Amino acid sequence: MLFNANYSNVNDSYLFSTIAKKVAAYRAAAPDAKVLRLGIGDVTLPLAPAVVDAIRAAAGEMAEKATFRGYGPEQGYDFLREAVRGYYSERGVSVSADEIFISDGAKSDLGNILDLFSQNNTVLVPDPVYPVYVDTNVMAGRRIIYADANEGNGFLPMPDYSVDADIIYICSPNNPTGAAYTVAQLQEWVDYADKKGAVILYDAAYECFIRDEKFARSIYLAKGAENCAIEFCSFSKMAGFTGTRCGWTVVPRAIERGGLSANKMWLRRQTTKFNGVPYIVQRAAAAVFTPEGRAQTEANLAYYRENAKLIAGTLEKLGIWFTGGGHSPYIWFKCPFGMGSWEFFDHLLGNAQVVGTPGAGFGANGEGFFRLSAFGDREDTAEAMERIERLLAK
Amino acid sequence: MLFNANYSNVNDSYLFSTIAKKVAAYRAAAPDAKVLRLGIGDVTLPLAPAVVDAIRAAAGEMAEKATFRGYGPEQGYDFLREAVRGYYSERGVSVSADEIFISDGAKSDLGNILDLFSQNNTVLVPDPVYPVYVDTNVMAGRRIIYADANEGNGFLPMPDYSVDADIIYICSPNNPTGAAYTVAQLQEWVDYADKKGAVILYDAAYECFIRDEKFARSIYLAKGAENCAIEFCSFSKMAGFTGTRCGWTVVPRAIERGGLSANKMWLRRQTTKFNGVPYIVQRAAAAVFTPEGRAQTEANLAYYRENAKLIAGTLEKLGIWFTGGGHSPYIWFKCPFGMGSWEFFDHLLGNAQVVGTPGAGFGANGEGFFRLSAFGDREDTAEAMERIERLLAK
Repeated sequence: MLFNANYSNVNDSYLFSTIAKKVAAYRAAAPDAKVLRLGIGDVTLPLAPAVVDAIRAAAGEMAEKATFRGYGPEQGYDFLREAVRGYYSERGVSVSADEIFISDGAKSDLGNILDLFSQNNTVLVPDPVYPVYVDTNVMAGRRIIYADANEGNGFLPMPDYSVDADIIYICSPNNPTGAAYTVAQLQEWVDYADKKGAVILYDAAYECFIRDEKFARSIYLAKGAENCAIEFCSFSKMAGFTGTRCGWTVVPRAIERGGLSANKMWLRRQTTKFNGVPYIVQRAAAAVFTPEGRAQTEANLAYYRENAKLIAGTLEKLGIWFTGGGHSPYIWFKCPFGMGSWEFFDHLLGNAQVVGTPGAGFGANGEGFFRLSAFGDREDTAEAMERIERLLAK
Repeated sequence: MLFNANYSNVNDSYLFSTIAKKVAAYRAAAPDAKVLRLGIGDVTLPLAPAVVDAIRAAAGEMAEKATFRGYGPEQGYDFLREAVRGYYSERGVSVSADEIFISDGAKSDLGNILDLFSQNNTVLVPDPVYPVYVDTNVMAGRRIIYADANEGNGFLPMPDYSVDADIIYICSPNNPTGAAYTVAQLQEWVDYADKKGAVILYDAAYECFIRDEKFARSIYLAKGAENCAIEFCSFSKMAGFTGTRCGWTVVPRAIERGGLSANKMWLRRQTTKFNGVPYIVQRAAAAVFTPEGRAQTEANLAYYRENAKLIAGTLEKLGIWFTGGGHSPYIWFKCPFGMGSWEFFDHLLGNAQVVGTPGAGFGANGEGFFRLSAFGDREDTAEAMERIERLLAK
């Protein structure tokens, strides 16, 4: 038996383990210090009452023989696919229910979708980048090239027609930079993909943070995207499902090449290698789209948005260049005093007892930048901003 | 962009859709007939009360900020990994918690595990076979060879040293044949794998039906299996989780080749392409191992076993050759009168209004055989057996 030798080429990420070690060492040296964590990408508010009620009700159905649910459709129950279809329809995007596949989260599908593509494709990812896009392709042995995101383009790289790519990753609003593409900018990417015969894997996991229609909440707002783009979305950030696990993927029927259909291939992949999302979780997700669920999850998003506003306001006051915050839970800023990412991490931890995420952990272009997250407590976020202001206003 | 052309080689299965069409046609022609379904591989009894209570309690935790759970460890929470470790320990099998990976079901992991292996491996599967083993490898472009299971070997093929294989699938108790290997027989497969440097993918999804210690409830009861075997198991049949989705995979640390470790590769795969099983589902699964959960799920298994006994008893009385039933929810029998699988399907539906599964749907060696399932209602099963006895005793 031969192992997949590509695994030898996957780099181990020490980003979060290094952060944990540095924080532990600091705490050991200064046990009385109150360390504030603004580095996490996880939500902190509990599930909405409408969602919890739906879980309890579904548990009740599972307890009775007459209403018990066994194997469900691998692509998800109609009640949830229809609810997602309605969510798109509100924004003027027309997708049919059989183009929507319910999943256990965007991360799983972003990895598993690669099953559909030949190893002989060139993959274009932005730098800095969510590491999963890179690692999943290294595991499959694909060639990876990078699109430079930097201060010059506001961390929103645009297509370069001199570059040939087959599989293009776009995440907007972006993790880690918080930068969001406008519909007009995405149209340029769709036109480029169309010209190159490429497919776009569009990660919309943070779309719920967008409040200005100029920014794209779906790539299907760009003309022709249904011919080239697969969209991944999630209840994780929209409704606090990071530990409850539900998302969806839109695979348009129009994506066809050489007699093969992406939609049919994905259906075949999922029916063969997946057995659907738990019934109780699908009921929980459907509750997000009820009037009560919408109001309750919107209130949670408003809480995180207010945190983001606090962070962005502090950086503005300090005159520090940044992206994100307005339409994203992440704020990505240039380290002051020309510091490197890790140098600034140590500075912030040692002098303000605030933990963030060094941009260098997301790629070469992240060096000299730093990420803060709006998913923490309001009080902690406010206190962290006061400390940062005191530290950096000097 | 190039699609994965191997998808063109995946055969569509029309087994269950053909059955559905035939049943619908029969019902249209004979609307008053009471059709009894003994074809399904899904459970029908509801979740145990201890499991339902655990779901409700976990929902309560998710409703409060202090006890809310976001992202969990991709490989599963310690409380569940420890419970699974204890389950093995009861049978004298020693696996450590970091060799146990909690999954959303055996089907997902049986497909996804193939990420770890080179395309240049030869795969050995039994015929007849659970179609997922074949389809997942066709999708990856691997060479597949078959081990003949037939009446002569009791549908339990043994190793043939003249055959070279790299990846070996074993499912015991078997789907579709219900046949179960003894520990001594599995030892022969482990010795063969060791000699060939192969890996065994051991599907133990039906181990909970075994009541005689002569039969293997885990491949790790065979000496040296920890050097070559990965075991997949599931709460689906054990506790009715087909719609609740939880299972586990054991990847021993001892499986190493050329500097790569299967355990480390799988951890890397799962942390990159998976985000863990929902917290509420892991709590539900852990409840299966509590004293109440054990007693309640055992009562459900006893119900299915009694159905299996009814079916097996009827076939014995009729003098029909069969496998399974004693340590399996499936009974696999030789079609009477020398009939073909589909011929017998039509005969049984038309004359006894009983639906089963034609063996030919599981591979060439299934022709002339037929599968009945013990997962139905007691009353329906009993009535179906009376009808079959009347029909075939003529």
